[in-house]
Amino acid sequence: MDFVINQEMLYATDDKSLFYQEKEAFSGVNRISKKVMHDVELVFGYSPQATTDRNQLGKTAVLYGTVNHSPMIFELEEKKLIDLSEIKGKREVYLFQVIDHPFEGVEKALIIAGSDKRGTIYGLFHLSELLGVSPLVDWSGVMPKRKDSISLSEDLKYISKEPSVRYRGFFINDEWPAFGNWTMKNFGGFNVEMYDHVFELLLRLKGNYLWPAMWSARFSDDGPGLANAELADEYGIVMGASHHEPCLRYGEEYKYLRGEYSIYGDAWNFIQNREGITRFWEDGLKRSGKFENVITLGMRGEQDTSIMGKEATLADNINLLRDVLQTQNQLIRENINPNLSDVPRMLALYKEVEPFFYGDKDTPGLMNSEELEDVILMLCDDNHGNLRTLPTEEMRNHKGGYGMYYHFDYHGGPISYEWINSSYLPKIWEQMSMAYDFGIRDLWIVNVGDIATQEFPLSFFLDLAYDFEKWGTNAINKTDIYTKQWIQKQFGGVFSEDKMNKVFELLIGYTKIAHNRRPEHMNVDVYHPVNYMESDQLLQQIDYLLDIADELYNLVDSENLSAYFSLVYYPAVGNLNLQKMWLLTGKNHFDAKLGKMEANRLADQIRECLKRDRNLVEEYHTIDNGKWYGMGLSEHIGFINWNEEGCKYPTLMNVLPTSKPRLVVMVDGEEQYTEGPEWHNNKLYLNDFLQPDKNESSFTISSLSDLAAEYKIISKNQWLTCSKTSGSLDGRENTMEVIKVRIDRNAMNGETAGSIVVEMPCGLATIIVNAAQHDFSDLPDMTYVKTNGYISIEAEHYFLKKEATNEQGEVNRFLVLQGYGKTLSAMKAFPTTEYFTPGKDAPYLEYHFVVQEAGMYELELYMQPSNPVTTDHTLFCGVQANEDDISIVNALPEGYRVDDPNWAAGVLQNIRRHCSNIYCKEGLNTLRIYAVSPGFVLEKLVIYPEGKKPANSYLGPTETYYVGK
Amino acid sequence: MDFVINQEMLYATDDKSLFYQEKEAFSGVNRISKKVMHDVELVFGYSPQATTDRNQLGKTAVLYGTVNHSPMIFELEEKKLIDLSEIKGKREVYLFQVIDHPFEGVEKALIIAGSDKRGTIYGLFHLSELLGVSPLVDWSGVMPKRKDSISLSEDLKYISKEPSVRYRGFFINDEWPAFGNWTMKNFGGFNVEMYDHVFELLLRLKGNYLWPAMWSARFSDDGPGLANAELADEYGIVMGASHHEPCLRYGEEYKYLRGEYSIYGDAWNFIQNREGITRFWEDGLKRSGKFENVITLGMRGEQDTSIMGKEATLADNINLLRDVLQTQNQLIRENINPNLSDVPRMLALYKEVEPFFYGDKDTPGLMNSEELEDVILMLCDDNHGNLRTLPTEEMRNHKGGYGMYYHFDYHGGPISYEWINSSYLPKIWEQMSMAYDFGIRDLWIVNVGDIATQEFPLSFFLDLAYDFEKWGTNAINKTDIYTKQWIQKQFGGVFSEDKMNKVFELLIGYTKIAHNRRPEHMNVDVYHPVNYMESDQLLQQIDYLLDIADELYNLVDSENLSAYFSLVYYPAVGNLNLQKMWLLTGKNHFDAKLGKMEANRLADQIRECLKRDRNLVEEYHTIDNGKWYGMGLSEHIGFINWNEEGCKYPTLMNVLPTSKPRLVVMVDGEEQYTEGPEWHNNKLYLNDFLQPDKNESSFTISSLSDLAAEYKIISKNQWLTCSKTSGSLDGRENTMEVIKVRIDRNAMNGETAGSIVVEMPCGLATIIVNAAQHDFSDLPDMTYVKTNGYISIEAEHYFLKKEATNEQGEVNRFLVLQGYGKTLSAMKAFPTTEYFTPGKDAPYLEYHFVVQEAGMYELELYMQPSNPVTTDHTLFCGVQANEDDISIVNALPEGYRVDDPNWAAGVLQNIRRHCSNIYCKEGLNTLRIYAVSPGFVLEKLVIYPEGKKPANSYLGPTETYYVGK
Repeated sequence: MDFVINQEMLYATDDKSLFYQEKEAFSGVNRISKKVMHDVELVFGYSPQATTDRNQLGKTAVLYGTVNHSPMIFELEEKKLIDLSEIKGKREVYLFQVIDHPFEGVEKALIIAGSDKRGTIYGLFHLSELLGVSPLVDWSGVMPKRKDSISLSEDLKYISKEPSVRYRGFFINDEWPAFGNWTMKNFGGFNVEMYDHVFELLLRLKGNYLWPAMWSARFSDDGPGLANAELADEYGIVMGASHHEPCLRYGEEYKYLRGEYSIYGDAWNFIQNREGITRFWEDGLKRSGKFENVITLGMRGEQDTSIMGKEATLADNINLLRDVLQTQNQLIRENINPNLSDVPRMLALYKEVEPFFYGDKDTPGLMNSEELEDVILMLCDDNHGNLRTLPTEEMRNHKGGYGMYYHFDYHGGPISYEWINSSYLPKIWEQMSMAYDFGIRDLWIVNVGDIATQEFPLSFFLDLAYDFEKWGTNAINKTDIYTKQWIQKQFGGVFSEDKMNKVFELLIGYTKIAHNRRPEHMNVDVYHPVNYMESDQLLQQIDYLLDIADELYNLVDSENLSAYFSLVYYPAVGNLNLQKMWLLTGKNHFDAKLGKMEANRLADQIRECLKRDRNLVEEYHTIDNGKWYGMGLSEHIGFINWNEEGCKYPTLMNVLPTSKPRLVVMVDGEEQYTEGPEWHNNKLYLNDFLQPDKNESSFTISSLSDLAAEYKIISKNQWLTCSKTSGSLDGRENTMEVIKVRIDRNAMNGETAGSIVVEMPCGLATIIVNAAQHDFSDLPDMTYVKTNGYISIEAEHYFLKKEATNEQGEVNRFLVLQGYGKTLSAMKAFPTTEYFTPGKDAPYLEYHFVVQEAGMYELELYMQPSNPVTTDHTLFCGVQANEDDISIVNALPEGYRVDDPNWAAGVLQNIRRHCSNIYCKEGLNTLRIYAVSPGFVLEKLVIYPEGKKPANSYLGPTETYYVGK
Repeated sequence: MDFVINQEMLYATDDKSLFYQEKEAFSGVNRISKKVMHDVELVFGYSPQATTDRNQLGKTAVLYGTVNHSPMIFELEEKKLIDLSEIKGKREVYLFQVIDHPFEGVEKALIIAGSDKRGTIYGLFHLSELLGVSPLVDWSGVMPKRKDSISLSEDLKYISKEPSVRYRGFFINDEWPAFGNWTMKNFGGFNVEMYDHVFELLLRLKGNYLWPAMWSARFSDDGPGLANAELADEYGIVMGASHHEPCLRYGEEYKYLRGEYSIYGDAWNFIQNREGITRFWEDGLKRSGKFENVITLGMRGEQDTSIMGKEATLADNINLLRDVLQTQNQLIRENINPNLSDVPRMLALYKEVEPFFYGDKDTPGLMNSEELEDVILMLCDDNHGNLRTLPTEEMRNHKGGYGMYYHFDYHGGPISYEWINSSYLPKIWEQMSMAYDFGIRDLWIVNVGDIATQEFPLSFFLDLAYDFEKWGTNAINKTDIYTKQWIQKQFGGVFSEDKMNKVFELLIGYTKIAHNRRPEHMNVDVYHPVNYMESDQLLQQIDYLLDIADELYNLVDSENLSAYFSLVYYPAVGNLNLQKMWLLTGKNHFDAKLGKMEANRLADQIRECLKRDRNLVEEYHTIDNGKWYGMGLSEHIGFINWNEEGCKYPTLMNVLPTSKPRLVVMVDGEEQYTEGPEWHNNKLYLNDFLQPDKNESSFTISSLSDLAAEYKIISKNQWLTCSKTSGSLDGRENTMEVIKVRIDRNAMNGETAGSIVVEMPCGLATIIVNAAQHDFSDLPDMTYVKTNGYISIEAEHYFLKKEATNEQGEVNRFLVLQGYGKTLSAMKAFPTTEYFTPGKDAPYLEYHFVVQEAGMYELELYMQPSNPVTTDHTLFCGVQANEDDISIVNALPEGYRVDDPNWAAGVLQNIRRHCSNIYCKEGLNTLRIYAVSPGFVLEKLVIYPEGKKPANSYLGPTETYYVGK
């Protein structure tokens, strides 16, 4: 007989209880059980009862408890009804088992036994998940699907895994104006009422670790008093503090307490005010040391700055930091535990602290120093989702282990991103799984800004940290599956499968677009307004996605609107509409420079986008009775500084119609244009048909006046047809016309070029159509052929992929990372921690291509903007053209450093381009790209004759023809 | 008793005549006498009578005749009543004398006796001028002031001068769409009815030479038939044809006559179609050789292009041209006059023909070749008013003499100017008087485009050619006097003295502004929108002038409106409004980039300017019953090519108001700005008070939103006051506020800097006011002092001006050319033909200045963009700093050639800037600038520490402080 919960049972009026709330249980566990009982009510419509008296239990019971904190669990183990040996001594593990007759009167029981407090809590929430309750039930108001009944098999016995990463959590940061206004309005402050929701979110997502808001808030004072900290402790949440808030003191505390007559002095300076600062730290440890914490060590300047002036030497800084660490360790010994290795401590190697840790060739850093024994060394990304240095094989022996501080939100240079989610799961996967591979397994913390709209990537981040075996390195290309499961959890009861697929398209679509450029980083100069039609194609995709968003918006019922709006619609539409606005602005400026009347229509559309942006935030602020009020307040348009100061809306360009009827012709995807003047350039070149797989192309006629202007189109060749032969534009309603051009290659009879004449009021434009035909029948599939100036290759479209075996017999190989790339995908070598030697154990990708002229060519590699994993500032790959020697190439610019302009360009563009020269033969060429350094992730290759760079664009030239395309 | 004409006499009904029309007189002279009689009618209201019968004359008579063509004049001479010895044998001279009793019945006669036909005609028109009739009476409808009576002293005896230049005329060119449409509508073609007006204009302006319209017209066919040529001949007008229309054939004739079966063949090519072309020329000479002409020799390609392909060598070209010349001379001998030296001929050294004339070191050119004996060699300007090569002393011996082809209108590169007058008298004076000095005295022709609006500079050009002694080299700085006289002639009876001064301001004002930049050459990037406030100051000046134009427009009576409109208002307002439009566009773009709401107001103002431009042309086309219809049709806005193809109206930039109240502060005249952000630059620097003569400066607060935004202004120093201490902008009606800052230097008590704080919604801006005080009491007047980064000197403000004497004892000296300079004036050395040797006979200008730091400085000279007068492509001056050697500097860029990009920049900007380095001492420095090559015209000097160029601008930095300023 299965374990069944059903409506009937809950509705029964016999006053029997389903949940057993042991007096001996952790109070936090009992609090969580109430949340789970509320979940039960949401699912079945009736609230279950709980009792502290076994005799009040019904025939079916939920029995939970924690090893060593539950007489009941102890008793069941004694009775051999359950076996706790598999969970005892483990971290955060639970037994989840259906048993019969635990005690008199109870026929069927679900046992949830935790190895520790968090184990029990995760076990309880496991029940909620089985009931179909989303971890976002409370935070986002995701309503579970109603059920009549649920049954768990009588054989059910599940022992959860020990989480992959020890401390897993997030950091509420950059909380003004959004999170701050939200909590002030909804809760009256950064207090325990608000944190109860945050803690619940964290625990339901199987996290255990939190850095609280700290821009203006004082977690230990705002509860009010210690209430925040006490509730965290009750729930088993391990509190941390950000990288510059040591000894259980939050940054704002010192600001609050300092002063001329303060016992803590009036200088955040360990040299000038050693006594005051030490006392400040000591009192922090005394106050909060009783809770579960990971204590931040070290010292940085106030507000995320370095502590010593620019004059200080590296050695000065290291010595000061060592002094600080010694002082702090001593304070911890005295006030918390004489056995330091029992006290979780963390030092963040953030910004300027990184070099203090590594030192340089003359000055040893703090690495391996006794002050850091057992301390978790927290490494960091570059604030933009790219890891910085990672532990070398030797460093991985550090007993304290390593942590990683990652960002989904950042307030800083080159440009902040704080408004809405712009993180892309494949990138999080690629970076964080590499972090794990490199041994970073003790602490993962992600900066989620205001939390709101980050729920989707945050879920993934914490799931990855909890169960790396399931989602990590071995689960390559599973983020789509994750996304589908996540959608199922939130909207399983709301949308049909078909519509959930649309939610999927929307989430993948908007995050991929944001991955290509974050919304705050967008501006008029990002995408090229015409080249390769990259703006038009993206606009088309955005409009498709916006339509989906609206379709689902119109479909969702009112109960679920809020969850759909906050989790999907708002971040998606916010992102897409903003990107659209900038793309239209690029086109507006381009068209205005040519005087096209279309520019004025675009200007109107830009105004519409801005209006939509404002309305969207307004709706976010008012939906669900203002639940999210404030969360949309961050500026997000047109940053010209790292923060919003001086940010600018798009400048709209308007054109004044010419006084005579005038038209202009452009070949689509290119900057060529002409009005067909008598004395100036009146020829355009349409070269698309040089790509053998292209049989359709287009040009556009646009009006420069608001007067009726006629045109005629005359194709001079039978094998060329145009979609129109004449027409008229009025420059008001009809400002432009796209003319499709089709080619019939079979009718060309050896001709290699044709022409189209466009007669316009101010002249004749001739479009020369180049369409030389080639015979590629001798060439094998996947051979690229240069037919029009350059070759553009998606890295995934290699001719062959060569694995290699190292001395230990392990296989090194390139694998495709699907969707991870600005245009298609990316190639990365595994294992991710290895350095490979080309010609020995390095895997390689081989590309075949044909050029018509021998000579020097430029090879441009498009790569993820990975930072080097070590401090030598290099990131190598191997390049080999034909029979040439393998050239080991540093893909980083000379002198590259995180925070330098090259780095800044890379994180904004989310691409690194590197050029090198290769010699090509006439005819078939072979190019091999070898993996060398970790972090080499290849997206695209472009090859062109030296000095003849293809037209500029953001995404790079679209892929050119290969045999078999 | 004086010679009197009065109303009474004309009104008298006794049928007695005033004018004696001899049968023997030239018919053209009699035709002109009728025009003069019409002038008399306009003045007195009654028409005088004319008679061929002496007995019909009244007591008072006007007796005119031409030596050798007038029995009456012969008779008077015989009677010793007049003495013709002073005019006989002279060119175009007349005797103008009052005598008593020439014959029976006539008591008082005015004798007008011409040495030749044109002499008599000029004499007749001299009477009109004495009556107060403008030479523009017919062409522009300038109405003379009504008079009751006029009297000429009984002693009056005036013998006119022989004109300074032999052939003096203009070229109707670039006549579509303006002149062409005008004549089609008003006269039905390029026919004799139209030319009658053109001839009259030419003769009244004392010209004698014409190149007729030739874009589509055929002067010799359009009369109809030869009527145009016949009338010209009747009037004594010497016909020419443009530089590429040889042998009395107009360019379009060949197009009209050529063909497969034509006797002239079908190729404008002397190699392939020698026979046909020769015949074509021969028939032209036969047809038109009977008239008075200056026959164009040589051959160029059709439509102003070179004749041989690019492959041809210089020698090939020279040989071909020599062959052509020999052929043409032979045809002239055979068909016109075997004595070639009696036939006026001209070869234009235009464009590519110039090198064929000069040759190079390996290939002798055509200079001194027998084919060119007695041929007028016509040199040219660079199409933009700057002379090219001029005859060397040796070349001046050429018997045929020299001509100059000058431009007030041009259809060609870098940018055409064809719409309205944009020529400036001081420039015409400077260039054409130099031409005369260099011996160019046989032919002056000026391209006047459509004639319309060129009447003012054309009058000057022809007066200068007619009476060089009065207006030429010795009449330095008399163009203002000329202008006042010209205004008096046109509006003496219309406006009061006071208002005529306003006309003067308007004419000088708009032509000076056009001199700084022609209207067609204007674009958004010419003037800097903020630096040195050059745009604002020019806008202020333009608005002042526009107000004058409108004031006079409203004042003028309806009879004189048409003349005022066409001669003054239309070209002035057309120019000014167009310049204003572009200046506003520059500000619009600048403000839009900063997001200022002011940008939107500026956009509206730009629209207004465009509207005004269109309305102005419309009024021009309809005023006076459509008299000028068509003349305004030339495109004139936003040229992006050399011609109007693809021309663009200003792009209007609109800003979207920020969502929060935001303000921005700028220091006026500089690009600095700030919103006072916390994290970014929030300091501005006001350095104006470093100039000891400045006691007032300003900054501007502008709104970025359309929301009410408050500001407070706090001066931190007692000696600094601001014109406001607080205020508010709404971003709608009030988009900006200029705050005046005043300094009380006496109250500074040794302080050298102060500050002003501006509190705004988004932050605090601090304006640092630098005002270090200096003691200049030791320094003599005219010593410049670097107080703020650079020194800017108007060339006229020298410390001393040193004359020098050459071996012949002539004095060489610099003279001020008033008003000739973009900002103040210019300095030019005289005699203009001389090469000077610094240290010997070179005059120099000496400047004194003080710098605080010794070191290398850059000296930037601002000069007129003169071309070198010889073919060695150099234009030297001497520079000497302190005791250093005199450095002989080539002010032209390396490899400078007319038509190259440096030249193009020079003619568009109407300035040449040249930088050289000088070493300066700490303290007082001396700088001498020596004249070396002809054509060196210095406007301004800017000195700054090497590499520290002052902020960019069109006019250059405004003049800085000198002692005694």
